[in-house]
Amino acid sequence: MTILILGAGQLARMMCLAGAPLNLNVVAYDVGSKKIVHPLTGQIYTTTLEQAIVDAHAITAEFEHIPDDVLTLCCASKKFYPGKAAIKTGGDRALEKALLSKTAVKCAPYQLITEKAHLEQAVASLGKPLVIKTCQAGYDGKGQWRLKSDDQIEQIWSQMADFIASGTESAPHTIIAEQMIPFDREVSIIGVRDKSGNTAIYPLTENQHTNGVLTLSIAGKEKTVIQQQAEDAFNKLANELDYVGVLAIEFFDVAGQLLVNEIAPRVHNSGHWTQQGAHCSQFENHMRAVSGLPLGSTQLQRVTAMVNVLGQAAIPQQVLSIAEVTSHWYGKTAKPGRKMGHINVSAANLHELGERLAQLSEYLPEEDYPGVLAASTALILN
Amino acid sequence: MTILILGAGQLARMMCLAGAPLNLNVVAYDVGSKKIVHPLTGQIYTTTLEQAIVDAHAITAEFEHIPDDVLTLCCASKKFYPGKAAIKTGGDRALEKALLSKTAVKCAPYQLITEKAHLEQAVASLGKPLVIKTCQAGYDGKGQWRLKSDDQIEQIWSQMADFIASGTESAPHTIIAEQMIPFDREVSIIGVRDKSGNTAIYPLTENQHTNGVLTLSIAGKEKTVIQQQAEDAFNKLANELDYVGVLAIEFFDVAGQLLVNEIAPRVHNSGHWTQQGAHCSQFENHMRAVSGLPLGSTQLQRVTAMVNVLGQAAIPQQVLSIAEVTSHWYGKTAKPGRKMGHINVSAANLHELGERLAQLSEYLPEEDYPGVLAASTALILN
Repeated sequence: MTILILGAGQLARMMCLAGAPLNLNVVAYDVGSKKIVHPLTGQIYTTTLEQAIVDAHAITAEFEHIPDDVLTLCCASKKFYPGKAAIKTGGDRALEKALLSKTAVKCAPYQLITEKAHLEQAVASLGKPLVIKTCQAGYDGKGQWRLKSDDQIEQIWSQMADFIASGTESAPHTIIAEQMIPFDREVSIIGVRDKSGNTAIYPLTENQHTNGVLTLSIAGKEKTVIQQQAEDAFNKLANELDYVGVLAIEFFDVAGQLLVNEIAPRVHNSGHWTQQGAHCSQFENHMRAVSGLPLGSTQLQRVTAMVNVLGQAAIPQQVLSIAEVTSHWYGKTAKPGRKMGHINVSAANLHELGERLAQLSEYLPEEDYPGVLAASTALILN
Repeated sequence: MTILILGAGQLARMMCLAGAPLNLNVVAYDVGSKKIVHPLTGQIYTTTLEQAIVDAHAITAEFEHIPDDVLTLCCASKKFYPGKAAIKTGGDRALEKALLSKTAVKCAPYQLITEKAHLEQAVASLGKPLVIKTCQAGYDGKGQWRLKSDDQIEQIWSQMADFIASGTESAPHTIIAEQMIPFDREVSIIGVRDKSGNTAIYPLTENQHTNGVLTLSIAGKEKTVIQQQAEDAFNKLANELDYVGVLAIEFFDVAGQLLVNEIAPRVHNSGHWTQQGAHCSQFENHMRAVSGLPLGSTQLQRVTAMVNVLGQAAIPQQVLSIAEVTSHWYGKTAKPGRKMGHINVSAANLHELGERLAQLSEYLPEEDYPGVLAASTALILN
């Protein structure tokens, strides 16, 4: 069985590695080069996208910003999962908010902006500071503003106005302003839904972002009540979208109340810990779901932390001498800030995990791997 | 870093899948076609073997019957692990017995045979029945005879004589007769040794063979005393060979006394359970060892059974709906008896493993998957 993935980055690579044992032959469409490639070896095939769509038993995506014509072609084949609505929603914050509203899943108060009056209205009704984001593009902290005082309105509006003006009716450029929530922490839920509507949900992950980019995730800390809120949100959203595959939802935890921050209709960086912490990883479960196989177990087997490797071409070898440490490289050329790989650390319990993160922090400098030592200390003291 | 593997079968494939997350680019030398290929995709590279040896940071093998000229080329590069002595020993039962004798590791009484008098002597001194095998070839039950009565001597000798006569001084064809041991069960130990001599050893595996081919392995049943015997044997043999990589040793368990049956200088079918049952699989550990990385944890994390898929192109989908069941396909075309893949089943304890094997046996007919139900019953009753 052949699976075609739109996008040929690290998520496609890890889906390929997870698909091979399931007898799934995975190929990828590189949106940049417009070629069909092998997501592990980079081998370029002479196949056209049209032919690859015909040849595939199922089609999926590793990201949500897929060119419209490509998405239309794939959807027409009736083999595309998680489906057009899900991908569009994941790629447009305005659609995302509409979905949340329809399903009564909570998020921060917000205002859509297409003219200056909307911005002023947002400042008046939502208060300051505001987090302002483009609706249709940007992730990992790109394309975002923070409005802290009224005297920033003119400057930010001028940047926003240029952006809005560059949109068209079929591809509008809208902007959203959200109340900046004084959250206690960021968490995410990763779950999977199959073609019959069965779902399986991993335990909640606690995430740390640095400069808008995920740097550290820890799974296995959660209390039942928070987990249940996240699962309820997952089930409402996945069912409403008639979703097939892995869906990730990022939340702010505000004093025990979860507010959705973002929805990603795909495998997600904050679910990379499942490669070691669960029996069936998010990558294998996504491959199982889109190819029509039964879902695998999402139960936590080992408490696990994930540390992103950003911009570094290598890690000290000693890292792998720490018990239950696994590296996952993406086979990319190093560039500053680029996601190069990640490190999973597992343990029998949170205290042991803290000890192992402390060992890890001896080899990984704080400036390149922020928060590892602090997370370790917090786990050990708890 | 590039690793060249001699042999392009399922073991190379699984080493490739385990190597990618470690940032290891794995290519394989297909001894049949004499081409350098990708062990997952089958892509054929234009590189020659000589160039591939130059390009590789380390070279290893997935099997022991490597053509002499290829082995010589690889060894000359000083990048070949586990080393020539280990490969030669694994491919020649006479050398294997010499190694066991030198290291005082026990095996069944035996006699080497190059002339008819030796066969008669073996019958006289070792008794009947005898298991008779070619020293330099054959595995999975091929090239073996069983001598049960004196009137078979003439017939078996005539077959043996032809075989011995076809050898040359540089490539002798010798034969070995072993006392047939009334063993209680077959077990194996899989361990790994790095370039500095550090070793890490997995828990013992209990194996069931059917018609000379492994059909079922179970890990996690062992008592300390038996495990210790196996580890002692592993350490003696691996140290004597100055071994680097994964080494497998198969034993007969005769009333609690382990006797070596066979040594395999490579990752081994009876270690496939480590993909789900241990933090670091035998494939990852072999890749770590030959590329000079620290060894990973070999501790049992989940009791795990492995069921070989022999000759079947597919398994019922429901198999994957059983908790903690993972399939591992090798991407091969089905032929009767061919190793097509394997199924790993894990659980929290042996009783639960028994229950899951019982579920599995509902989907896997006894004639194709012998022993699954019996193993399940034994685990549940214990």
